[in-house]
Amino acid sequence: MGRKVFYISDGTAITAEVFGHAVLSQFPIEFEQTTIPFVETLTKAEEVKQKLNDCFITTGERPLVFHSIVNPEIRAIIYSSEALDYDFLNTFVAPLEQQLGVKAEPRIHRTHSIDNAAYNDRIDAIHYAMDNDDGISLKNLDRADVILVGVSRCGKTPSSLYLSMQFGIKAANYPFIAEDMDNLKLPSELKAHKKKIFGLTIDPMRLHEIRNQRLEGSTYASLRQCRMEVKEVEMMFKKERIPFLNTTYHSVEEIATKILSETGLERKMF
Amino acid sequence: MGRKVFYISDGTAITAEVFGHAVLSQFPIEFEQTTIPFVETLTKAEEVKQKLNDCFITTGERPLVFHSIVNPEIRAIIYSSEALDYDFLNTFVAPLEQQLGVKAEPRIHRTHSIDNAAYNDRIDAIHYAMDNDDGISLKNLDRADVILVGVSRCGKTPSSLYLSMQFGIKAANYPFIAEDMDNLKLPSELKAHKKKIFGLTIDPMRLHEIRNQRLEGSTYASLRQCRMEVKEVEMMFKKERIPFLNTTYHSVEEIATKILSETGLERKMF
Repeated sequence: MGRKVFYISDGTAITAEVFGHAVLSQFPIEFEQTTIPFVETLTKAEEVKQKLNDCFITTGERPLVFHSIVNPEIRAIIYSSEALDYDFLNTFVAPLEQQLGVKAEPRIHRTHSIDNAAYNDRIDAIHYAMDNDDGISLKNLDRADVILVGVSRCGKTPSSLYLSMQFGIKAANYPFIAEDMDNLKLPSELKAHKKKIFGLTIDPMRLHEIRNQRLEGSTYASLRQCRMEVKEVEMMFKKERIPFLNTTYHSVEEIATKILSETGLERKMF
Repeated sequence: MGRKVFYISDGTAITAEVFGHAVLSQFPIEFEQTTIPFVETLTKAEEVKQKLNDCFITTGERPLVFHSIVNPEIRAIIYSSEALDYDFLNTFVAPLEQQLGVKAEPRIHRTHSIDNAAYNDRIDAIHYAMDNDDGISLKNLDRADVILVGVSRCGKTPSSLYLSMQFGIKAANYPFIAEDMDNLKLPSELKAHKKKIFGLTIDPMRLHEIRNQRLEGSTYASLRQCRMEVKEVEMMFKKERIPFLNTTYHSVEEIATKILSETGLERKMF
């Protein structure tokens, strides 16, 4: 049983989670984490305070609280509990007010709001990624910001979706399949958009593991097949001078940001 | 031209962006934002320092830097620039070390790493959401954590994908279409999993706007059609006692976290 940690917010608590998780991941110990979002009323705040105090009594240790509570009355109630508060919003807001010469105007739900034109672009990008996944359609490539290509299960789909969700980037993706391998080349529809093409590759052993989880014992999943496909596709990337990235040791966050970094595409924020 | 802000990291810089964006969104002014990820070498750090100093000279204002740099040598170089540093990692790591009685072991790329079993579950959840989007398949509903239902373009797809990407939740989704409306009921395949069903609805006017962007002037997009579909579906939700949420004024972050909050599904962290 690790130390108890609570992520608390009067909004989604996503920011509190991201913040707390980043800080706690620096420590080589286990934590037991609970998220409490939408603490929007004083009654709810009192319930949470009680929960924190109970936790202290039960465990004998003060629970850690990472929060991003905008409402000052609700924040005061959480502060008055036995928990240890780590309040990243207010820690930085005061020095920034001084620097900027502007008073903060805390408003709930501003971080993840739909009050900006960019939000529609983001939803468009998500639908675009869905509609242009896995080579389903090659008709809309003129609207793509980037076109990811590679063998089946090398990470194209999660990367395309992450690019759309997090950064509002329109990413299409196209798979090279077993039947293509004898004479592998870029389809003419893709060739017309070559500047947008970015390749993904993966170590054959890892690909074999991933495909085996999906279709155990199949030719598709065999190490021999994985080796052959990866070799053919990497050769083609080099011949066509398509920039590419090996996804084996990278999370979708890392893959997506490396793609943006190498292509120079702008990261939008929501 | 707003005040210049830089998000800098030796990793993806996603955490620096989320953190800085949350803090700055409290201020009613414009910022001009630049993200510089993967500052992994001293040479690159010196280049970034030069860029920050140039920015100070050009604008006459010290740029703001939000960073999550784990490597101390690289951090020192950024600190030595003319920029104003807001370092949320280190601000909180020292007090936490004292509280926990454990030294932090900063390691790069720990926040968004694939070094945990949960990462595979997350990728599975993303593929699940793709394969079970828009009623494509009703065969895998026994594996779903939640099944989102509602009219076309009420927010099911982005919400399903966000649930999978951010929280590792397996979300299927199913649309009620115009042809269903005369005698609207839950298909028997869904009825078998009724406890997992969660409804989404939307204001007809907003639905009309969204559909018009897609198919302007169509019957599908007409306000009359939108009103009728929303009314029928909401009536069915009530009759079947399906919990539901109006998405009109909510971002995908808010919709997804509200669904988790109301269904009691666990939020995983990656």
